[in-house]
Amino acid sequence: MSSGFNQNPHKLLVIPGPIEVSNDVLLANASASVSHVSADFVKIFQQTLMLLLRLLYTSPEANSQAFVVSGSGTLGWDMVATNLIETGERALVLNNGYFGDSFKDCLEIYGAKVDTIQAELGHTVTPEQLEQHLKQTNGSAYKLITITHCDTSTGVLANVQGLAEIIKRVAPKTLVILDSVCSVASEEIKFDDWGLDVVLSASQKGLGTPPGLCIIVASNRAIKTFESRRSPAGSYYASWKNWLPIMRAYQNGSPAYFATPPTNLITALHQSLSIILKTPSLSLEERFERHKQASHQVKEAVKRLGLKQLPVNEKSSANGMTAVYLPEGIKPGDVVGKMLTKDLVIAGGLHKACKDRYIRIGHMGLTAVDHQRGDIALIVKGLTETFSELRASL
Amino acid sequence: MSSGFNQNPHKLLVIPGPIEVSNDVLLANASASVSHVSADFVKIFQQTLMLLLRLLYTSPEANSQAFVVSGSGTLGWDMVATNLIETGERALVLNNGYFGDSFKDCLEIYGAKVDTIQAELGHTVTPEQLEQHLKQTNGSAYKLITITHCDTSTGVLANVQGLAEIIKRVAPKTLVILDSVCSVASEEIKFDDWGLDVVLSASQKGLGTPPGLCIIVASNRAIKTFESRRSPAGSYYASWKNWLPIMRAYQNGSPAYFATPPTNLITALHQSLSIILKTPSLSLEERFERHKQASHQVKEAVKRLGLKQLPVNEKSSANGMTAVYLPEGIKPGDVVGKMLTKDLVIAGGLHKACKDRYIRIGHMGLTAVDHQRGDIALIVKGLTETFSELRASL
Repeated sequence: MSSGFNQNPHKLLVIPGPIEVSNDVLLANASASVSHVSADFVKIFQQTLMLLLRLLYTSPEANSQAFVVSGSGTLGWDMVATNLIETGERALVLNNGYFGDSFKDCLEIYGAKVDTIQAELGHTVTPEQLEQHLKQTNGSAYKLITITHCDTSTGVLANVQGLAEIIKRVAPKTLVILDSVCSVASEEIKFDDWGLDVVLSASQKGLGTPPGLCIIVASNRAIKTFESRRSPAGSYYASWKNWLPIMRAYQNGSPAYFATPPTNLITALHQSLSIILKTPSLSLEERFERHKQASHQVKEAVKRLGLKQLPVNEKSSANGMTAVYLPEGIKPGDVVGKMLTKDLVIAGGLHKACKDRYIRIGHMGLTAVDHQRGDIALIVKGLTETFSELRASL
Repeated sequence: MSSGFNQNPHKLLVIPGPIEVSNDVLLANASASVSHVSADFVKIFQQTLMLLLRLLYTSPEANSQAFVVSGSGTLGWDMVATNLIETGERALVLNNGYFGDSFKDCLEIYGAKVDTIQAELGHTVTPEQLEQHLKQTNGSAYKLITITHCDTSTGVLANVQGLAEIIKRVAPKTLVILDSVCSVASEEIKFDDWGLDVVLSASQKGLGTPPGLCIIVASNRAIKTFESRRSPAGSYYASWKNWLPIMRAYQNGSPAYFATPPTNLITALHQSLSIILKTPSLSLEERFERHKQASHQVKEAVKRLGLKQLPVNEKSSANGMTAVYLPEGIKPGDVVGKMLTKDLVIAGGLHKACKDRYIRIGHMGLTAVDHQRGDIALIVKGLTETFSELRASL
């Protein structure tokens, strides 16, 4: 592991993804080229798929199937929409923000009739709201219901377990789809226990790997739903008809070809998953706990500065990021620019309702769990100085 | 450049992609994380898009537009099919092998009515065959015609210039689509002069970058065709409605967001394109010439061994790879295994008609152009020894 490789000195990247990546993972991303059908790579890919299942507390014994495909997290929406919905079937989007809007657009492209439960800005759709909606409408007619775990535009965190329980009870045939691009490896996700059918994610957030991998874990029920389609999937690249045999082959330790897999990125993800799941001194549970602690420290600092967060309810706010309203007279660009002079890279707003009135800070992966780095202290110090300077010049 | 970074010792990868990647490009792939909207990354992405245009002898002045998207080369088929075809429109696939079959499948998923001109195994569709076909059928009714430049399954190389000339003359309104996954940067492609409308490619072959990037260059005419669609694109992730504003923004030097771009891979591609286009001692023309020389050396060695190549006509064989029939009694696995013991990684067959009777060798990028490495001599020596040993044990 101690290869002597050190990444170039750089500003600390604390946006809600991409995140800081460790030297070991970057070094894996710089591995010498290998054949995608070589025994060495097959082993790496197989272990990667297995580790992803383990990260979500599921397993091949539960007939869960992981997919790792070249693409951004967005491709995961296409995978759900094109494989699990047929034209005219109904879907329900629990919309907590920007990413709910886009998932709806994607589902509609593939022919779904989409209803939405719209949370107010800063709120999440609650299990109670969902239950009421499902009982008032013909809830069991939904082919699938999508939940955005952490909406990266606002930093709200959905109560996935509570929502999934309602679905199991009121609409038990409906598939439970979790968009967890901004939560895998930074928030606990219990795939089997909660009865999830698809978790979709990407490499560049809690997984601590450079961007470029679309990551899916599908339940046996989701796979069976796909296999019993009456019509072919409407996409070629996102079709499980093409990918399922490939992922099954690699998961079973054999190569197969549909499209060239992104060998270096998969090797990097393998390295990151190995660190996440096989570091004796830091269990997965402790990893989640450290994300909570880091989040608490940033959120407390924000409160001390007299600033309000976008999530209205502290219990419904993400542990991997913090979204903060700015005081009158201070713009996102002012804060981002000032932080940049302190070698800290944070993000501006994204949600259309308040884009120009807030900032976003990421604290996932290394930044949250590696205390020796001191990233959280740097963030808190940077924010404190920045707001003091900006307020002084108001 | 001389960073001191050296990739791990490894077997020489001489399959028809992924290929050997230079230390500088791998080091770029291990760059520290950057924000996808940072000024530094915007500059890298802008230059990458510009360099891709230059590599194909086109330019922003010709209103050509480059796309670099997280995905494998296969995603390029979806981009063509979902953006440039509407349901019921006709397409013609010039089918030289495996990849023609798959492109047809992809076009049909998006509603195209696809005709095929099928070349016999080892042959390419000739301009004469195409002209005859277009005149006998209502050729000008084709919305687009696809050409596989080098079919990686057989190593045949299409006469793109000749084919495009026929299309311009007989069906001038038809879009000319070139699948050049296995030819960009190893074969000359004159986008403007030849009148091409889409070139689609991937990062892991002549471009000498790890796999994971879908690369497209589209003509102004292709973009206008997309913009005048009557129906929405059938894919979400592959839709230019989502990507065109993003690529235009980055090409003009501003960030924009649809999905997180694969920042490290783009930085690696930028490094590789900079080497390809800005090395004073090796012009682009000289680069193509070196691929021809390397190819000639491998093909002559194969002849000396008394082996027959898949491409029937030497003029219609690729310069970036060689596909070779095996003598009776020798199987692809025997050759691949024996070469492996000599630290050389070559590939087995892929074309369904003769999958178990041939091998494939790649000689693109570094392996072809960097004479100091001596890769070609290693390939020739390895093949010579391997066949001598295998024949002795027959």
